[in-house]
Amino acid sequence: MPGLFGEHPATESLDSLSSVGLLDTTLRDGEQAPGVSLSPDEKARIARQLDAAGIDVIEAGSAVTGPGERETIRRVTSMDLEATITSFARNVRGDIDLALDTDVDGVHLVVPASDRHIEGKLSTSREDVIADTAELVEYAVDHDLWVEVIGEDGSRADLDFLEELMAAALDAGADRVCYADTVGHATPDRTLDAVSRLADLGPTSTHTHDDLGLAVTNALVSLAAGADLVHGTINGIGERAGNVALEEVAIALDHGYGVETMDLTRVYDLAQLIANKTGIPLAPNKAVVGENAFTHESGIHTDGTLKDESMYEPYPPEKVGRERRLALGKHAGRAGVEAALAEHGIEVVDAELDAVFERVKELGERDKRVTDADLLAIAEDVQDRDRERRVRVEDLTTVAGSGTPTASVKVVIDGVERTEAAVGDGPVDAAMNAVEDALGRTVDWNLDSYHVDAITGRTDALVTVEVEMSRGDRSVTVARSDADITRASVEAMVDAIDRLVETETEPLVADD
Amino acid sequence: MPGLFGEHPATESLDSLSSVGLLDTTLRDGEQAPGVSLSPDEKARIARQLDAAGIDVIEAGSAVTGPGERETIRRVTSMDLEATITSFARNVRGDIDLALDTDVDGVHLVVPASDRHIEGKLSTSREDVIADTAELVEYAVDHDLWVEVIGEDGSRADLDFLEELMAAALDAGADRVCYADTVGHATPDRTLDAVSRLADLGPTSTHTHDDLGLAVTNALVSLAAGADLVHGTINGIGERAGNVALEEVAIALDHGYGVETMDLTRVYDLAQLIANKTGIPLAPNKAVVGENAFTHESGIHTDGTLKDESMYEPYPPEKVGRERRLALGKHAGRAGVEAALAEHGIEVVDAELDAVFERVKELGERDKRVTDADLLAIAEDVQDRDRERRVRVEDLTTVAGSGTPTASVKVVIDGVERTEAAVGDGPVDAAMNAVEDALGRTVDWNLDSYHVDAITGRTDALVTVEVEMSRGDRSVTVARSDADITRASVEAMVDAIDRLVETETEPLVADD
Repeated sequence: MPGLFGEHPATESLDSLSSVGLLDTTLRDGEQAPGVSLSPDEKARIARQLDAAGIDVIEAGSAVTGPGERETIRRVTSMDLEATITSFARNVRGDIDLALDTDVDGVHLVVPASDRHIEGKLSTSREDVIADTAELVEYAVDHDLWVEVIGEDGSRADLDFLEELMAAALDAGADRVCYADTVGHATPDRTLDAVSRLADLGPTSTHTHDDLGLAVTNALVSLAAGADLVHGTINGIGERAGNVALEEVAIALDHGYGVETMDLTRVYDLAQLIANKTGIPLAPNKAVVGENAFTHESGIHTDGTLKDESMYEPYPPEKVGRERRLALGKHAGRAGVEAALAEHGIEVVDAELDAVFERVKELGERDKRVTDADLLAIAEDVQDRDRERRVRVEDLTTVAGSGTPTASVKVVIDGVERTEAAVGDGPVDAAMNAVEDALGRTVDWNLDSYHVDAITGRTDALVTVEVEMSRGDRSVTVARSDADITRASVEAMVDAIDRLVETETEPLVADD
Repeated sequence: MPGLFGEHPATESLDSLSSVGLLDTTLRDGEQAPGVSLSPDEKARIARQLDAAGIDVIEAGSAVTGPGERETIRRVTSMDLEATITSFARNVRGDIDLALDTDVDGVHLVVPASDRHIEGKLSTSREDVIADTAELVEYAVDHDLWVEVIGEDGSRADLDFLEELMAAALDAGADRVCYADTVGHATPDRTLDAVSRLADLGPTSTHTHDDLGLAVTNALVSLAAGADLVHGTINGIGERAGNVALEEVAIALDHGYGVETMDLTRVYDLAQLIANKTGIPLAPNKAVVGENAFTHESGIHTDGTLKDESMYEPYPPEKVGRERRLALGKHAGRAGVEAALAEHGIEVVDAELDAVFERVKELGERDKRVTDADLLAIAEDVQDRDRERRVRVEDLTTVAGSGTPTASVKVVIDGVERTEAAVGDGPVDAAMNAVEDALGRTVDWNLDSYHVDAITGRTDALVTVEVEMSRGDRSVTVARSDADITRASVEAMVDAIDRLVETETEPLVADD
């Protein structure tokens, strides 16, 4: 009887899975992503968080890369983590010696498996690869290293040879072997076939890449075929389209099959840490950890979610350390708008709700996003309230360039007009310093995020600056579009401050 | 014998697949992503490109959303495209009437399938859902519409009821039924089970979401179980973590199984268009269409790629309308650095190459990215050449705020010092206008991308501005970090212009 992605007697349902281990290679394959370089401090911090989340094996780097890298690996091995700490090593003795120098628990010995790599890249032969591998495994085992042998480009290798090579590695004392879809080439059929042959020989890992969008599929197929350790990275970073995203493997196994692999509640913080440190941003629609993964905007979805939180979610956001968010926009429904108004303490009668709802949809059709500030402004207008803006910029001048950045602002604070000038590290900083001078005291706001939307073409295009600012447990997001990036930045920030101090009863302007 | 993800007699290898259709719902489910709103022009442009790429069915929107949406759908239906154009409709007659009003070829009748949706959301009963569905299908068919019935939340439905409901829909004349994993909840086992039961009844589509990272897996499992039309979106945008990314399904079927679904060479342009119009950016490591999907930085990979282009790629980038890129950084190898220097026409002797290589790695360890400009600067320094900068900013003053943005620049062009002042739409625009005045003529540069790295904390943090500029077929990326966003922007742009005009033989300063 045919299996799902091909005929193979070894296939079985994932329902019978018991224990699955995770290996995180963010610090090695992840760092090989273009433009990524992690400092020793950053690597140590990421390793600590991975360990705290229960990752079984942490590949801390490649000792041969250089002295800085070895120093970093040493930092990680000296931290006394629960996880097994490893280094990448090519099939040369020097790499193993350098790894030993960093006190790792083990090495991944990466040996060529496909003819393209054996002959085309390394100009050697299948026989020599087998002989070298056996010798190096013995050498590493003699030095008390845990050894995993990875057959590079295994998905394009002759399977009979791959089997022979891996059998030799295990005979020589390797702890496990790894099926590597190095270039993200394999179909699930091929993966099934290869992994089940290796798993018959001994403990087998799987290392999948996402070039065809099949990294998760192939990781799961590998497990079904008998593998028990999944290589990947948080956020799925890595060479080219990246490695399999471990958080996706972990949630799929947990939610779908009741198999626990790591502490999922730490996944979101870990994802943020790694995105910040590597500079590789998460797409809003990234599974599990993307900004929109638990955001509902459309009317049908928001309405359903207000009735039953699980109406449009497979699992609660808290499971992965997150919160649900209801957003407003073109597809908003009445119930969603009403809920958002209630969140801001605004009560509306039916006719007012209708009017606000219509305006939100209109704005949503015109713009890309309806922010909290937009909603409040609409509600004020509909209810014919003049919200008392407590802080507002009346006039702004910034001077920047080769000299000291300088700004003057005329601000109206609780009805009192004040003009101040200040210097700063840049024109925006100078203007914000002047605003604070005008306030006469420091408002303890924090700038949580600052985004500038890409402009292209020529320099006269509009830029959109979006700031997220918080003060205590109050947080607000404001966006401003303008051809002048300084003015857009300052106005968005002052508007955010105004929203943050809205409920404060103290007078804002301190006595001079 | 057990199947891969469960026991089911209907499973078969994907090797036996013949024809698979694609339905793109970027304009409906994609637009429901938080913060997305497409104008009629944008929807029309996207629809035209989807059609040109050979997408079979285009879901153009949901007619009930409002008059603006209906106007937009009408724009798409009036374009005389090859694809079948459809609208979403809830299980009420009014939605079908509104859809008819837009001249679509067909509708997706979305009816509740799980008890959570039947009772919890719509307060109706299974019996009424079946009766209503049959009646509405007949109504739609009577009005010459192609009808697909989607069982909303089908992955959490009682499968016996789902089968009964879909059988009733087909009996009433529906053209096809759709298995919807609306909340991205299903395991491959569950998908296999459900889809094979529906496919036994008649033509079946599959609609998968990526909340568990399983959108692609479940789409492929659905095809193996007998479905023949895949719902998804380019870039995988959509509610929450999004729909399955059609470009991933298409490349996996093409590369892995030789099944053609669309014109893949158009995928990259389509992905860029949709990212720009929706404002939902692509992660650099997004499969197929991410910035890094065909970029090689690490020494081993660059070296291998220089020997054989397919060494670290499953398929050539040209297959999806792209180009290969070799980047430099911490993991660079000698061969990669040498190739990059050669690309810029710089010849080095061995000792020089060693020195440049070391400096590139040092810079890579310190910084996040080694740009072209960085490499050239290092090479000049190592070879003790003073590169003749043709354009350089000596002095810059910008004034912005409430008045007219104004800037003065002192630039040195081919050794001649010129000071000019100009106004603009913002301080950067003003400064760049002044630079062009100083050049005495327009240099036809284009700003291809402009990124500002997030700063957080307070406004005195460093910002990093990265610009990518091109002129004809020359392109350069330059990054500048500064606390002053205006200065960083102008200096990066002028540096880029300097690199772009480097090889020009004409004098740069025109006569006044």
